[in-house]
Amino acid sequence: MALRSLVESANVPGCDFPLEHLPWGRFERSSHPGEWHVGVAIGTKAFDLTEFARAGHCGALDPMLRDALHRGCMNALLALGRPAWSQARRWAQRLLSADEPALRDRADRDRFIASQDQLRMAMLAEVGDYTDFYASIHHATNVGSMFRPDNPLLPNWRHVPIGYHGRASTLVPSGTAVRRPCGQTSTADAGPPSFGPCRLLDYELEVGVVLGPGNEQGDRIDIASARDRLFGICLVNDWSARDVQKWEYVPLGPFTAKNFSTSVGAWVTPLEAIEAWMEPGPVRDAAAPENLPYLRWKDDFTFDLKLQVLLRSARMREQGVPAMQVSLGTYRDMYWTFAQMLAHHASTGCAMRPGDLLASGTVSGPTPDSRGCLLERTWRGTEPLSLPDGTQRKFLEDGDEVILRGWFEGKGSMPRIGLGECRGVVLPALV
Amino acid sequence: MALRSLVESANVPGCDFPLEHLPWGRFERSSHPGEWHVGVAIGTKAFDLTEFARAGHCGALDPMLRDALHRGCMNALLALGRPAWSQARRWAQRLLSADEPALRDRADRDRFIASQDQLRMAMLAEVGDYTDFYASIHHATNVGSMFRPDNPLLPNWRHVPIGYHGRASTLVPSGTAVRRPCGQTSTADAGPPSFGPCRLLDYELEVGVVLGPGNEQGDRIDIASARDRLFGICLVNDWSARDVQKWEYVPLGPFTAKNFSTSVGAWVTPLEAIEAWMEPGPVRDAAAPENLPYLRWKDDFTFDLKLQVLLRSARMREQGVPAMQVSLGTYRDMYWTFAQMLAHHASTGCAMRPGDLLASGTVSGPTPDSRGCLLERTWRGTEPLSLPDGTQRKFLEDGDEVILRGWFEGKGSMPRIGLGECRGVVLPALV
Repeated sequence: MALRSLVESANVPGCDFPLEHLPWGRFERSSHPGEWHVGVAIGTKAFDLTEFARAGHCGALDPMLRDALHRGCMNALLALGRPAWSQARRWAQRLLSADEPALRDRADRDRFIASQDQLRMAMLAEVGDYTDFYASIHHATNVGSMFRPDNPLLPNWRHVPIGYHGRASTLVPSGTAVRRPCGQTSTADAGPPSFGPCRLLDYELEVGVVLGPGNEQGDRIDIASARDRLFGICLVNDWSARDVQKWEYVPLGPFTAKNFSTSVGAWVTPLEAIEAWMEPGPVRDAAAPENLPYLRWKDDFTFDLKLQVLLRSARMREQGVPAMQVSLGTYRDMYWTFAQMLAHHASTGCAMRPGDLLASGTVSGPTPDSRGCLLERTWRGTEPLSLPDGTQRKFLEDGDEVILRGWFEGKGSMPRIGLGECRGVVLPALV
Repeated sequence: MALRSLVESANVPGCDFPLEHLPWGRFERSSHPGEWHVGVAIGTKAFDLTEFARAGHCGALDPMLRDALHRGCMNALLALGRPAWSQARRWAQRLLSADEPALRDRADRDRFIASQDQLRMAMLAEVGDYTDFYASIHHATNVGSMFRPDNPLLPNWRHVPIGYHGRASTLVPSGTAVRRPCGQTSTADAGPPSFGPCRLLDYELEVGVVLGPGNEQGDRIDIASARDRLFGICLVNDWSARDVQKWEYVPLGPFTAKNFSTSVGAWVTPLEAIEAWMEPGPVRDAAAPENLPYLRWKDDFTFDLKLQVLLRSARMREQGVPAMQVSLGTYRDMYWTFAQMLAHHASTGCAMRPGDLLASGTVSGPTPDSRGCLLERTWRGTEPLSLPDGTQRKFLEDGDEVILRGWFEGKGSMPRIGLGECRGVVLPALV
């Protein structure tokens, strides 16, 4: 039996943001230009908790939580940890219930309940550092087999949650257009290179996790504490310039090939909202070696988050043709869990800070139609996709829009909930 | 003829911080706990510009510059760009002159002039993103030849200023002790791995550059604008866990091997202070290919910055034995310039922000005694160093202190100036 909200659009079956969900976002309202507020999504609306706090209606909350809401400072809220997150969530859920008069019957309710389409979304928090992992064994094996057919998976891969530091300055919220980068590429392995617009522009379907309380530099993080340090999940598109990447990545890894833009879903789903879907994990095959103790946790979890990529060309938009599904997979297919990524990241004493973003790396499954980037989906362009507008795609063209979606199917008393969308249109290169 | 300062220690020949230098720093004073002030070093003292501004003595400065100083916000000052930096420098230089009564004759002068040893230094600015390059051809060739004797320098190296994103959260100012990390390592290339204290802990002698005005995401940076975007240089020690690095770095580059700590010299030397030492550069051998146009600039520059590494064991400190020189080299030996690193970094449209830190990668010269890390200096431990305490070093031991120094020799009317020190003691691992 689904919960009923005072926001009617939240009660429509199949909507992304029912009362059971309440993902967090940070936004600017046209009524308050220049201010960042935080709030939760409900149906097609958002509950502006910063405005509610400033109106003096948060007296029931702990002072530090109230202060974080009042300031619209998500990093402060993330630092408070799980008890505060839980308190805020329960309180917002009660206020947004159809049965609760405190908000429902206010004459000035619209001051606190805004339409999502009236919001200018920001990244949920200021991201001190952004890290990208490589946690799908299918993705790693596919990409490896293109370059090393005899030995696709490197010896370290099943022992180390491989990752690299990403670029925090170019994280953008869903909806931000992405400029096709220029870069240095070479058609021959030995050069000479040239400089010009990327010819092999790709997306990568990923899931991100926003961190809460961190650690002191020099200390490690016990994997068993991960549940209290992982705030919530979101969609991530790690746009990639494959031709730039191929030429530059040896020996220090991807750099300019991925530093031009990373799109992030604007609404972050707290882990508390998806507890019904958590299952023991990760799922491993019989050949998998036992991991080192710092990566083992008896309560480690994964989840069957459905993940979809859709593509819509400029011509399809003109023709009114809906976006085409390119792939459909599930996060359950990932080899490494977020808890393992976090414990490994901090295993050398690296300081993690509230608001840091970890992304999973491309989520690919075992079948061709569950491959989460075009490099794999078209197998380096050898198996192009046919679009409804009559064109083919090996890699992205200017005007293409990539739309990532993620959702949990209804389960028991829990209705389906969705992570919303992470979308971006490719703009032509500036030459 | 050297300039004379009202601070007598700045007039001692050979000191790092004469009146011609004036490097910038950010610090907390015991008289103002909990506040970060900015100022310039002069002799053994620092001129607290934030305190001076708060006392209302900065009326001669542009309002935005005054405001940045008043707030102690170096990022704001960096964003103002070269005209503001130059104005602040000239103004501070005049005030600190022995001939200028405005500060010299103030009864409350000590309010604004503090002893450096009374300051708790911070990183100069909040670093949004930190990037580490690999710009020494000698370092790249040496390291490459250990792993690929027949083909030490990869085909992309002379075309691409190779770099990778580093970890901003673990940048620490000089003087901060460095905890030996634990990490995942393997003695065999194929595993199995184990987890424990790093056995091959190394330093890397590098030079960093702090950025001023950045670019909008999606735009590139013209290399010819680099001089206006590079604020100043500092010493950097990119501590490295070589055994962790060896096991983890394929295919996405160094990650936990370098994310535990990066030490940064606390005083940043503005480029304006070293103009006398700038020379056309970089110096290239005849075999060097011409670089792509976006990496060419007729006014590009390098400099003969002398760079020294010293090592002092715990026993040497107990015995009162001074630190031993391990290497001596010069920044002039670098293949890639900071202007090239910046232009390449932004070549795909990556947004650069004021306060970002770029580091050069290990500065190694052509001779064994100019190699800037132990991996090269002891050739993977095959040629250990003998210390005055009777012990040998292949890699760093607990208690070892690494001290980096950099300086420009006197030239024409310019006295010698020094970048100060970047030091750190190795603490034992937490097991």
